[in-house]
Amino acid sequence: MRDYQNILDEIYTTLKSSKNPGEVATYIPELAKMNRDSLAIHLRLSSGESFSVGDATEKFSTQSISKVFSLAKAFQLAGNELWQRVGVEPSGNPYNHLSLLELDLGKPRNPLINAGALVIADILISHLENPKQEFLDFVRELSHDSDIDYNKAVAESERQTGFNNYAAAYILKSFGNLHNGVEEVLEFYFYQCSIMMSCKQLANAFHVFSNGGRCIKNNKHLSTYKVKRINAIMLTCGFYDEAGEFAFEVGLPGKSGVGGGIIALLPHYFTISAWSPPLNANGNSYLGMKALKLFTAKTDLSLF
Amino acid sequence: MRDYQNILDEIYTTLKSSKNPGEVATYIPELAKMNRDSLAIHLRLSSGESFSVGDATEKFSTQSISKVFSLAKAFQLAGNELWQRVGVEPSGNPYNHLSLLELDLGKPRNPLINAGALVIADILISHLENPKQEFLDFVRELSHDSDIDYNKAVAESERQTGFNNYAAAYILKSFGNLHNGVEEVLEFYFYQCSIMMSCKQLANAFHVFSNGGRCIKNNKHLSTYKVKRINAIMLTCGFYDEAGEFAFEVGLPGKSGVGGGIIALLPHYFTISAWSPPLNANGNSYLGMKALKLFTAKTDLSLF
Amino acid sequence: MRDYQNILDEIYTTLKSSKNPGEVATYIPELAKMNRDSLAIHLRLSSGESFSVGDATEKFSTQSISKVFSLAKAFQLAGNELWQRVGVEPSGNPYNHLSLLELDLGKPRNPLINAGALVIADILISHLENPKQEFLDFVRELSHDSDIDYNKAVAESERQTGFNNYAAAYILKSFGNLHNGVEEVLEFYFYQCSIMMSCKQLANAFHVFSNGGRCIKNNKHLSTYKVKRINAIMLTCGFYDEAGEFAFEVGLPGKSGVGGGIIALLPHYFTISAWSPPLNANGNSYLGMKALKLFTAKTDLSLF
Amino acid sequence: MRDYQNILDEIYTTLKSSKNPGEVATYIPELAKMNRDSLAIHLRLSSGESFSVGDATEKFSTQSISKVFSLAKAFQLAGNELWQRVGVEPSGNPYNHLSLLELDLGKPRNPLINAGALVIADILISHLENPKQEFLDFVRELSHDSDIDYNKAVAESERQTGFNNYAAAYILKSFGNLHNGVEEVLEFYFYQCSIMMSCKQLANAFHVFSNGGRCIKNNKHLSTYKVKRINAIMLTCGFYDEAGEFAFEVGLPGKSGVGGGIIALLPHYFTISAWSPPLNANGNSYLGMKALKLFTAKTDLSLF
Repeated sequence: MRDYQNILDEIYTTLKSSKNPGEVATYIPELAKMNRDSLAIHLRLSSGESFSVGDATEKFSTQSISKVFSLAKAFQLAGNELWQRVGVEPSGNPYNHLSLLELDLGKPRNPLINAGALVIADILISHLENPKQEFLDFVRELSHDSDIDYNKAVAESERQTGFNNYAAAYILKSFGNLHNGVEEVLEFYFYQCSIMMSCKQLANAFHVFSNGGRCIKNNKHLSTYKVKRINAIMLTCGFYDEAGEFAFEVGLPGKSGVGGGIIALLPHYFTISAWSPPLNANGNSYLGMKALKLFTAKTDLSLF
Repeated sequence: MRDYQNILDEIYTTLKSSKNPGEVATYIPELAKMNRDSLAIHLRLSSGESFSVGDATEKFSTQSISKVFSLAKAFQLAGNELWQRVGVEPSGNPYNHLSLLELDLGKPRNPLINAGALVIADILISHLENPKQEFLDFVRELSHDSDIDYNKAVAESERQTGFNNYAAAYILKSFGNLHNGVEEVLEFYFYQCSIMMSCKQLANAFHVFSNGGRCIKNNKHLSTYKVKRINAIMLTCGFYDEAGEFAFEVGLPGKSGVGGGIIALLPHYFTISAWSPPLNANGNSYLGMKALKLFTAKTDLSLF
Repeated sequence: MRDYQNILDEIYTTLKSSKNPGEVATYIPELAKMNRDSLAIHLRLSSGESFSVGDATEKFSTQSISKVFSLAKAFQLAGNELWQRVGVEPSGNPYNHLSLLELDLGKPRNPLINAGALVIADILISHLENPKQEFLDFVRELSHDSDIDYNKAVAESERQTGFNNYAAAYILKSFGNLHNGVEEVLEFYFYQCSIMMSCKQLANAFHVFSNGGRCIKNNKHLSTYKVKRINAIMLTCGFYDEAGEFAFEVGLPGKSGVGGGIIALLPHYFTISAWSPPLNANGNSYLGMKALKLFTAKTDLSLF
Repeated sequence: MRDYQNILDEIYTTLKSSKNPGEVATYIPELAKMNRDSLAIHLRLSSGESFSVGDATEKFSTQSISKVFSLAKAFQLAGNELWQRVGVEPSGNPYNHLSLLELDLGKPRNPLINAGALVIADILISHLENPKQEFLDFVRELSHDSDIDYNKAVAESERQTGFNNYAAAYILKSFGNLHNGVEEVLEFYFYQCSIMMSCKQLANAFHVFSNGGRCIKNNKHLSTYKVKRINAIMLTCGFYDEAGEFAFEVGLPGKSGVGGGIIALLPHYFTISAWSPPLNANGNSYLGMKALKLFTAKTDLSLF
């Protein structure tokens, strides 16, 4: 068996000695306060064994990574009707671009771009009694860890500055593709994105997607059919306008967030998460991307 | 072990009794002559065993499927320098759209859209002594079958009517991303697309991509590294604006052509090809897509 | 001298017997209540003589026509600094399109598209103590008629449904091109658009633009320089994606609104307004456009 | 009466002492040979009086200015049927942009962008026995000067390098909006653009557009109706993505070319041409634009 700890150690050493031209996201003022030198990787095998380097239990803002949880919950609740309101195609555009939303007459290209995640948030609000609490419960359950919470300061910070998300929500509303109020949807969405999780918690939570829908406690949350489709969407749409590059260089389904986190997985084999706040030009963690490229290069473990 | 013949038979029966709203491509006059009722599927396991239904030895125009062969040959010859001139991102646009080509300043989004394949053709011309003959030899070698040839009538037919490809080539030329003459590149490209192959020949030839770069005669043509990347590109870019849908519903790397052919594969497991001329609105074989969806649904064999 | 009354009578008869395929705007519910058979034309010569047919003293919702008043007031107050924040180029897109706004990095193409008018509204709010009152006073002064007012029901109706304008405002905000709050700008903007005026009042008010900046009471409101430039913008940008068509067929600076009103003018000669609620596919009054085409065809009075 | 010679002299002095950040067009190699210090202005009043500064009888490549002649000839021959194949709306895009051509399904936005001028060239070829000779005769007749000719070196130079025009022609062909062969249309088009004329010849030739269709010899070439519409198109579409700016700052119908020439006119008053090779970022002569701004500022003669 491979010496995974040794592999992670090597990667960590390489990254620590790399120049990092990335920049910490500043458009959400709270995020700008992050330490640009934070670095962590956590690997969890399907067997349950796990390996870490760096601050793998330090929590950070999951941001867009949380869109996979909300997609999973909405898919669980609404089933394939979901796809009437949001597509499954890569966007071919930067993550905050609005034009494709319009061209498709208010149907966002996929659930992992902002506009699509707003439709997903709208669906959750329509299905849940107490959306914020129930969504948090779902994430805690997948992670089997109740020490996970929203970060109100981040959510509030984004509410003050997230004008582009307001714009996207109003365009969706103008096309009739938000059923609840714009403010209500954005409130939920900003909270959802603010969830704080560590690399370890993320790797535990995403086990459900590498294990046919069963979480680390072996409870069945999603059908195999749904898990496969969520993985396919992560592969083709999980990294904004760098999804093809990630599939090309890493070859795993995954998702990144502007908090500097990345999570990826190989079905039936492992989940792996990395965290480093400075982002590349496409909005993905510069060192996080590099970490995963090194991991698949060293282990030869990928879909293809 | 699964009874694959039985599975293919079931699929064939289902398809034969399906309504087919697709339409045979008419923009290349020679293609319009195809029999819209032709239908074939060929499955080849990595072990070498194979299973067929329908006219699996009848040849048809491979069209865009041939772009995978030309990509493979160019990648073999030029290595990673290739990616200076063509990207690896899905296009988010119809297969004959020109605007993204422009926005990216003459660098096509990926090698499987027409503009990208023209750049690949240009690279092959620069590297090969006798491009048409050497490319044909490469395809024959992968298939281990010398009974494969260009269809001059189809190539000539497209030369008369392929105005959109002329436009794409001249845009590339205006950006300096074609090094050879436009006419020379298009001549090669139209011949490349005209290659006639059967479902069986395709499934045999694509074995190289499911077998780490070794063809059915066990000769090494491509490194594992290159094969993985070609598979990743097929998954994210192989089906025009339906790539996400194919990943979502089928979950295999693959490629389609307007001749009605589709090829897909699961690394280390199998290659599978289907042929039915009528196309859906995205330019992919209507029944071919359905055949592959049914196959992965029945066998549960997919990447995810 | 021409018999203008006779010319208007002829046009009126022609229009009354024309089929009208246009449709009354319904996206602002209050506007949908208009009588689709209302029809009026009012011609005011520079000499002061005037001629009318139809309900020329019946008030209607000026909507986008009011953008010329707000542009004039903002130009008066801010001078050429205005053009740092909004361009003077035609948009080449439908009136409610958002993409050009983005491509130009938050600088709307011109002040007569919605996004541009929002920037103008923002500028007025920054310069005026009591924006709504002072803007209304300005329009009343130009018209020399104090019986002009906002229609709160229309303003409120648009606030409930104007999601696309909210979206545009938030995009502008995200680019830093709104200095005041989004809600405050939209509040002013919806009120501005709701101003009710008759054809006669409009023809009187626009005299200032055909008379080198002097209103019908001969008070100087704008420099000749500014008036010329406002006229140029009306000519190139006054009719959404039909501006070229209007210059081609009518050849006068002008502006239309979704309330079915159109105003146009020939510097030093006349102002002319028409009103008929049903709109063509470009959002301009179907019969109003026809009325002005007939008028310039019959009188041979145009810029060119 | 104004002292026009004095006004031109003042403008010339101002321009001669201005910094010129413009750059001579190099994409047509022959044009790159022009002297960047050439400067000329020629004013021709409707009365026949004329005034010059600089090298007003030196010929230069008219390039896109020739599109007005071809439009005039095609409108003369084909009448309003022309507008089935080309629009009259400003493009809102750089002069060599292709995407709007596509969005409108092969119908170029107007006859003064390259794609539109190709359709016009196609129409001329369909109507004329000997297109190149008859078109040249038309220009000579309008100028009342037989010493005007094509520049074969420039035409040939553009044929070697005008890949973007080839691309546009092939897109038009793919939409069925070129009836003649691509090579034949481009051959005519490159010759048309290569016509060499001086400022004086241009001002004489454009008199037809300021004089209701009668040329300087008082022959009637175009109806008043057609002349008005050509002037409207020049105003809204004559300066690529700077048409609004030109209407705003100058306020005259006109047309520029990448040879550094600009022509403009005020109906019933004058024609004026300027020439200076270095171009601004929008492809219009930097000093030529400035010359016309100064002229209308000093004389207060404009449409508005």
